[in-house]
Amino acid sequence: MTFEKTLVSLVENRRWASVKDVLKTMNPADAAAVLDRLEPEVLPILFRLLPKDTAGDCFAEMEPETQEAVLRGLADGELRQIMEELYTDDAAALVEEMPPAVVERILSAAGPEKRQLINQILQYPEDSAGSIMTTEFVRLTPSMTVEQAIGHIRETGLTRETINTCYVTDPQGVLVGILSIRMLIVSDGTTQVSVLMEPRVISVGTLEDQETAANMLARYNFVALPVVDGEKRLVGIVTVDDAMDVLVEETTEDMAKMAAITPTDRPYLRTPVWQIWRSRIPWLLILMISATFTGLIITRFEQALAACGALMAYVPMLMDTGGNSGSQSSVTVIRGLSLGEVACRDAFRVMWKETRVAVLCGGTMAAVNFAKLMLLDRVGLAVALVVCLTLVTTVLVAKLVGGLLPILAKKAGLDPAVCASPFITTIVDALSLILYFQTASAVLGL
Amino acid sequence: MTFEKTLVSLVENRRWASVKDVLKTMNPADAAAVLDRLEPEVLPILFRLLPKDTAGDCFAEMEPETQEAVLRGLADGELRQIMEELYTDDAAALVEEMPPAVVERILSAAGPEKRQLINQILQYPEDSAGSIMTTEFVRLTPSMTVEQAIGHIRETGLTRETINTCYVTDPQGVLVGILSIRMLIVSDGTTQVSVLMEPRVISVGTLEDQETAANMLARYNFVALPVVDGEKRLVGIVTVDDAMDVLVEETTEDMAKMAAITPTDRPYLRTPVWQIWRSRIPWLLILMISATFTGLIITRFEQALAACGALMAYVPMLMDTGGNSGSQSSVTVIRGLSLGEVACRDAFRVMWKETRVAVLCGGTMAAVNFAKLMLLDRVGLAVALVVCLTLVTTVLVAKLVGGLLPILAKKAGLDPAVCASPFITTIVDALSLILYFQTASAVLGL
Repeated sequence: MTFEKTLVSLVENRRWASVKDVLKTMNPADAAAVLDRLEPEVLPILFRLLPKDTAGDCFAEMEPETQEAVLRGLADGELRQIMEELYTDDAAALVEEMPPAVVERILSAAGPEKRQLINQILQYPEDSAGSIMTTEFVRLTPSMTVEQAIGHIRETGLTRETINTCYVTDPQGVLVGILSIRMLIVSDGTTQVSVLMEPRVISVGTLEDQETAANMLARYNFVALPVVDGEKRLVGIVTVDDAMDVLVEETTEDMAKMAAITPTDRPYLRTPVWQIWRSRIPWLLILMISATFTGLIITRFEQALAACGALMAYVPMLMDTGGNSGSQSSVTVIRGLSLGEVACRDAFRVMWKETRVAVLCGGTMAAVNFAKLMLLDRVGLAVALVVCLTLVTTVLVAKLVGGLLPILAKKAGLDPAVCASPFITTIVDALSLILYFQTASAVLGL
Repeated sequence: MTFEKTLVSLVENRRWASVKDVLKTMNPADAAAVLDRLEPEVLPILFRLLPKDTAGDCFAEMEPETQEAVLRGLADGELRQIMEELYTDDAAALVEEMPPAVVERILSAAGPEKRQLINQILQYPEDSAGSIMTTEFVRLTPSMTVEQAIGHIRETGLTRETINTCYVTDPQGVLVGILSIRMLIVSDGTTQVSVLMEPRVISVGTLEDQETAANMLARYNFVALPVVDGEKRLVGIVTVDDAMDVLVEETTEDMAKMAAITPTDRPYLRTPVWQIWRSRIPWLLILMISATFTGLIITRFEQALAACGALMAYVPMLMDTGGNSGSQSSVTVIRGLSLGEVACRDAFRVMWKETRVAVLCGGTMAAVNFAKLMLLDRVGLAVALVVCLTLVTTVLVAKLVGGLLPILAKKAGLDPAVCASPFITTIVDALSLILYFQTASAVLGL
């Protein structure tokens, strides 16, 4: 981003008119990204130079730290203007992020009606559909004509987050149908909304998980999904742009869990070191303690190993291969579970599939290894057999453990993502060592 | 899905009228999911029972195998009808998936104009923005009035994939502005499009990566993104529903690579065993061969270890902790790179951050370990010191390697995702062993 350097130099030289012109050419999201990287002191001045019609959009896209710096520098009148432009979902997110003193100013600037809507959204549990919904949608009644509906949209449309889908409710506020703006436009002006509307409406409950709502938007190719309360009354909509953010956020969380990290919602470079430490150390400690059991196993068999010196050389290869084979299976199944391609009832299909894959993979690697052991290492047939047999059984055990653990975790109500590489590796390490020594005792009679 | 069982039993009892009624209540995406799970023989019959207005949408949502089974059972006339309903992007995707004989039928059913559009999309490279775009968008000219524009939408709108954003082009077809349906509706009928349109248009080139297009849609909260050719002429749009599919698909690919699997685009349970084997075995072999180096290291130091029997017991713990620490850093950086939160120029910031985190994590674990070694294992001060010193240095090296390798991979034009757990573990295993033996020699004088 060269914009950043240009802007900094323009700001340093106090070329305010040029700064204003530069900001005018930028999309709100890009302007927000540039402001995020500037020093807090210049932010309020720069914010005032943003074009009036996009300042609100730009504000909604900024990082919380940037928003706070801007808010601290603005007068109450300017704050009121921003609050008018923010959609309720963005306003609620803002209130959640800001320190108490700023929140007080925000809420008093919001005006009674918006304040009530914000408070309502904040009451829904974190990560629920209700907590990410917006209340700016177009509401129609079944008895309206197309002409009346379009007139209604013309009056209120500019302040709605989307007008692409309109929602039809009965006098009790119960959602009875949806109607696309497309249908309104191509239809005759005297037709009634109730005739045109699609009564088979798919909606989500306020308390459902935000990920469920996002997945429904993706599945049904919707631009917005209606959110209803326990009495099926329409209380808000989740828009596709927020759904995309949720999907990205949930993926980041899954990946963190798969690497044995407690997820945080701040970008890596902006997270303080002690917070990164806090998100990583518990898992490292747990895994470290688990690994000491593997140490106990190795100690127990150390004498036996010393009797046949060549065996020790293959311990890392067997442990690593077991870990890698198990990780492949676990990550595949974890992703399948989260995409809904694999369900808990598929446990036996997964086991049968992994068994066959394990035999193929284990067989291939054993063959390669056998050739290497006999021709390169020249360890003798007995040791080669021990290593290759262990390889096949380790891969089989690893793939079964890797495929099955995520499903069991899900069944137990845990997040399958924690059953990824680190845990599988720790379990499979111990199992592969036991298998190795058992096979060695059986074949070599140690 | 109980729909599935209900439908199967209705089909078996040939209750066609009821099947039709059941299908009528379902959303096209849900109907497609049910059809995906049924036997191929019944698919053409069931497909004919779908409501006429949603059959096309349902068809577009089916798995390729299901589409093929349906197509094989349909007459040419029915096929023509489907082709009329499919948007160009879905039609192009269909052509790409079907075997040659079916493709011939599809293209001849498509009609000359659509055939040409399909062929045009198929010419763009796989995974490019051009390959996922659709050509059904609303095109306006700058000189149109609002009334004329709405009239144009009224005529053509029903066949467009989205009418929410309209695209304004000059006589050469160059994209000069965009205009939302919202602005058209709230504006005066005699205003010119050129006055209302937003001339600062963000677009993507046909040859750019589909992931770039999807990320832009997410970043700018667009419902559709215009796709332009080398001369800035508008050739299509990428819609947000396709962008969401791309994001999900790319995430799945990243996760596969991070677990050392060659990505495939079929769902796990539908992928044949030999294909799973093919996607997993190359990496297992590469990693297995790398791990033999770790084996060489362990063999070289085996004598030294035997001299101080207690040391071997801590090898698995040190190797695992190193691997886990490195994986945490690499996965964090890989995700940061793919979200654009970390760039190659941040290499030094990443190293400085990981160094401090490593000292904190390593220090904590060393402290816990030291207590355990002295109080539980009673190994003596010298051995405890060796283990704890190695632990700290291993964690430091692991976190630096884990943090830096993905950035180096990106700089070298490789996919950072391959630098995840398995590769980091293999590298760190060897390094931790060398560190362990070096420390042991220095402190214990082996």
